[in-house]
Amino acid sequence: MVKVRMATPVLQQNDEVARENRKLFRKKGLFVLNLMSSPGSGKTSILERTIEKLSSRLKLGVIEGDIYTTKDAERIEKFGIAVVQINTAGACHLDARMVQPALDDLDLNDLDLLIVENVGNLVCPAEFDLGEDARAAVLSVAEGNDKPAKYPLVFRESQVVLINKIDLLPHTDCDIDQLEKDLKLINHQLKLFRVSARLDQGFEPWVQWLEEQVNLKKKLSASQ
Amino acid sequence: MVKVRMATPVLQQNDEVARENRKLFRKKGLFVLNLMSSPGSGKTSILERTIEKLSSRLKLGVIEGDIYTTKDAERIEKFGIAVVQINTAGACHLDARMVQPALDDLDLNDLDLLIVENVGNLVCPAEFDLGEDARAAVLSVAEGNDKPAKYPLVFRESQVVLINKIDLLPHTDCDIDQLEKDLKLINHQLKLFRVSARLDQGFEPWVQWLEEQVNLKKKLSASQ
Repeated sequence: MVKVRMATPVLQQNDEVARENRKLFRKKGLFVLNLMSSPGSGKTSILERTIEKLSSRLKLGVIEGDIYTTKDAERIEKFGIAVVQINTAGACHLDARMVQPALDDLDLNDLDLLIVENVGNLVCPAEFDLGEDARAAVLSVAEGNDKPAKYPLVFRESQVVLINKIDLLPHTDCDIDQLEKDLKLINHQLKLFRVSARLDQGFEPWVQWLEEQVNLKKKLSASQ
Repeated sequence: MVKVRMATPVLQQNDEVARENRKLFRKKGLFVLNLMSSPGSGKTSILERTIEKLSSRLKLGVIEGDIYTTKDAERIEKFGIAVVQINTAGACHLDARMVQPALDDLDLNDLDLLIVENVGNLVCPAEFDLGEDARAAVLSVAEGNDKPAKYPLVFRESQVVLINKIDLLPHTDCDIDQLEKDLKLINHQLKLFRVSARLDQGFEPWVQWLEEQVNLKKKLSASQ
């Protein structure tokens, strides 16, 4: 019988490191976004479109969370921006302690916006604060209307939901107006953006929101 | 500082209860399927079609795993078969210890096939043996071609993959032949079924496979 002692509960340990990460991001005036969703909702495709649109306007960095592979990091690297891969080696989410050493591999002084793409999982990532400024969840219309009710935590803990694959709407039973109402019931402050990463539709309001957040964070940090 | 002691590692504890469940299922000659996928791949819709086709041929029971709601159990209840809901209260997967007490709420002597619909998550459920006879993973063509490589464990640990939403194929970039090759590379023994739960396509080979498994399990149990 193996005994395991845990001196501090996992989430408490995580929150301490998340506070350290947050303090560092504040010092650098860096806005950090935690991007979360189920596998296959289109996080990486959304990230690609976002980089295309913002890389001439902002200095971008990306941390890619993945269980085993570097597939997503390879997709992002093609855009010539700073990208660091975290392989979680089986863990189903990123936590603040995984993110902390990855920050050493980035020149934070040379970044305006850092996007952390979490592991594809609609459940566990929402429980772990990384020290980020905001969380964006991605939901594809192909996943069906019941996802907000069944997985409320990620939507309650996010500031933004990107509703992706709207090009598939005519071919699914998804009622997008009802979906948005259900999301607002869980979190009435949510910013909702309808996009199609595949067809490059609907991204301008989203990247404008991101740019605003980046500028506000800079001002806030400068004033402190 | 709170100290937490764990006398036995979680997975070891789980495996002990899984063995007890498996022993009970053998005694009853009951075939048990663990149905796993991401949120929104169509597990519940596939379950509905499977029940429609099999309920006149087999005595079916269902255990529904969900984090908070009873939405899926309500959908299954309409078919007039035995269904038990397990709410995991935040946990992102079912484990054998959650399944064990739920079995008391079913008349196992009166069942041929028990289907356990796991929590929507392509990562953690695959780590927990429930005592089942087989595992079926669901993958929707809308989730993209890279899922087998990025989330290999669930496909390595399954006997079956149901590739769902094939009606969306003309509207996505999914290459289904390549997807099947990639799945076979991870696990060459996988049985693959292409289905559309929405349009009720492709289910006959799948339900025939299930029926065969049920009959084999009955014979096996009777011979022991």
